[in-house]
Amino acid sequence: MSQSEVIIKDNEVDIVIAAMQFDMTSFFNEWGPLLSKYHLIIVKDTDLKEELIIPKGFNLDIYTKNEIDRIVGGKFLFSGYSCRYFGYLVSRKKYIISIDDDCIPAKNDKGELTDIVSQHLSNLKTPATPYFFNTLYDPYREGADFVRGYPFSLRSGVHCAMSCGLWLNLADFDAPTQVLKPELRNSRYVDAVMTVPIRTMMPVSGINLGFDRDLVGPAMVPALRLAGEGKFRWETMGDVWSGLCVKAVCDHLAMGMKTGLPYVWRKERGDAVQSLKKEWEGVKMMEEVVPFFQSLRLSPEAVTAEDCVAEIASAVKERLGKVDPMFVRAGNSMMEWIKIWKAVGSGPSLAGGGA
Amino acid sequence: MSQSEVIIKDNEVDIVIAAMQFDMTSFFNEWGPLLSKYHLIIVKDTDLKEELIIPKGFNLDIYTKNEIDRIVGGKFLFSGYSCRYFGYLVSRKKYIISIDDDCIPAKNDKGELTDIVSQHLSNLKTPATPYFFNTLYDPYREGADFVRGYPFSLRSGVHCAMSCGLWLNLADFDAPTQVLKPELRNSRYVDAVMTVPIRTMMPVSGINLGFDRDLVGPAMVPALRLAGEGKFRWETMGDVWSGLCVKAVCDHLAMGMKTGLPYVWRKERGDAVQSLKKEWEGVKMMEEVVPFFQSLRLSPEAVTAEDCVAEIASAVKERLGKVDPMFVRAGNSMMEWIKIWKAVGSGPSLAGGGA
Repeated sequence: MSQSEVIIKDNEVDIVIAAMQFDMTSFFNEWGPLLSKYHLIIVKDTDLKEELIIPKGFNLDIYTKNEIDRIVGGKFLFSGYSCRYFGYLVSRKKYIISIDDDCIPAKNDKGELTDIVSQHLSNLKTPATPYFFNTLYDPYREGADFVRGYPFSLRSGVHCAMSCGLWLNLADFDAPTQVLKPELRNSRYVDAVMTVPIRTMMPVSGINLGFDRDLVGPAMVPALRLAGEGKFRWETMGDVWSGLCVKAVCDHLAMGMKTGLPYVWRKERGDAVQSLKKEWEGVKMMEEVVPFFQSLRLSPEAVTAEDCVAEIASAVKERLGKVDPMFVRAGNSMMEWIKIWKAVGSGPSLAGGGA
Repeated sequence: MSQSEVIIKDNEVDIVIAAMQFDMTSFFNEWGPLLSKYHLIIVKDTDLKEELIIPKGFNLDIYTKNEIDRIVGGKFLFSGYSCRYFGYLVSRKKYIISIDDDCIPAKNDKGELTDIVSQHLSNLKTPATPYFFNTLYDPYREGADFVRGYPFSLRSGVHCAMSCGLWLNLADFDAPTQVLKPELRNSRYVDAVMTVPIRTMMPVSGINLGFDRDLVGPAMVPALRLAGEGKFRWETMGDVWSGLCVKAVCDHLAMGMKTGLPYVWRKERGDAVQSLKKEWEGVKMMEEVVPFFQSLRLSPEAVTAEDCVAEIASAVKERLGKVDPMFVRAGNSMMEWIKIWKAVGSGPSLAGGGA
């Protein structure tokens, strides 16, 4: 099923890396061969004091607190994981691939190194099929197709706007799960990609992600910050929040989201027991957030991702704001983000991609 | 995640085999070791003239046209694939596993023989999670869990009523796909089980299936028969229809459906080109059927699978009947089926399972 496939040139892709540790040598040693032909955007965690150490030989731009303050004027707090969102803002490319810096390339079930960029781009350049479930997984993968009974009118699918990759070794569990099962490791390589069905909500993780910036960039909002947000993935919910926003935009604008391959190998970081001792609003929060997004319906007037984000922001403030002031702040941040997105010229990339 | 796991005894399971070929020797030679401890129900295709040849040593009951006519009095046409539905009717067990007779056991990606019954029962005895998508697949599988952001209130899940297995080698494609890609074989072993989300419709295949007869048995209706229905799977839509009915029942009664493992290895059978030459309503049909089931909402008064089937049958006759008289017949057959289901005493199995 390749008739709808898009050709993506290397210069249409930005790899965004949030540098949460100053010495990126081992990260680049591991990823170098897979990333060397792409342009990289490195955003330094604004809390990080040390000078970044990055091996020579890459085509990259580094953004630190100075550039960030100059461009967004202190309106957003780009500390910790959220600093990558600044990279999404300053990118001028159509496609973004984002990887946490505690990950290394994974091997597939045959022991071969997986090419994370090419797999994310495969997911993005072939259609998504959110309106009916294909039991044979992504019908647009090599060797796959639609199963008997799949309506022919739905087979051409819709644009895939986001590709959510997974994790071997340390999966993206929450701190309670990790504390209850300290030995739990994800060792199952599931050789599948699939479209998440329309109106099905899911927790996107920012660990390993690809998306079409032109289609959903503005919905990748660094809007939700927990009061007790920390430096470990399980102490944050910002990526889950922006993922729900992107899914709502996809459902409304007839685009799709895929999940599955590629995997990354995720190394140990952090002490889940210490994290659990902190006051953490993440658990309670999702009990309010999921019903909100499940019942959210946008108006026909919302025809771009920016429009959708503005509508979601209003609904968040109105319906979730009374539950917790954190949601009022999130709604305000979303409004502010789409203003900045426009102001700094983060609109759709030029056709064919920039330099 | 084993706290909600149910223990299933061997005598709570019936394996239903539709005998579409008279010489079942090679089928039993292949499956024997995996099926020998269970009770088998063999239903002979009523079109089949020859005497069945079945190796000795199995605990089984065979049903042929004589028994069928005696019990249902010629009200249903149990020829071809639909004869297995008679097996569901006469079973008194809680769990049914059904396998097409052109399949043999599959090997997993490590070369080990997969135990189809135990995998279907694993899927059925652990909860399904249809209300939110878990990117780590079935959280109740060994070695898996819920991903960060999965609401804790939704983690206990609901009863899993159906387990849909998949196919290696010859997948369940339709005839047009098979004709366009005669070399297409499914060689990808995807080591995953997942819940199909609520309100997501999918085409269930009858090739390799497990279900909880107590929960959804009456919704497994042999109701839809194409005018040009033939002896090859791709010439039928009866299983897709009953699958949509079961999914609608699950969505309404807060139960779940899983898909993925186990695989069977499916051998060649039939000539897709010959099948395509026949008038086939299957393609056109799904264009009408999918929007119908997607928009179907049952009333709060429907509290059992029988109630749901009766409501679906009425809606089918009313809304689809005008499209094609085939749907009027399907609606009538559904009404008739729940009457027969009650009349022959196919209600819930006795606690603990019969002999």
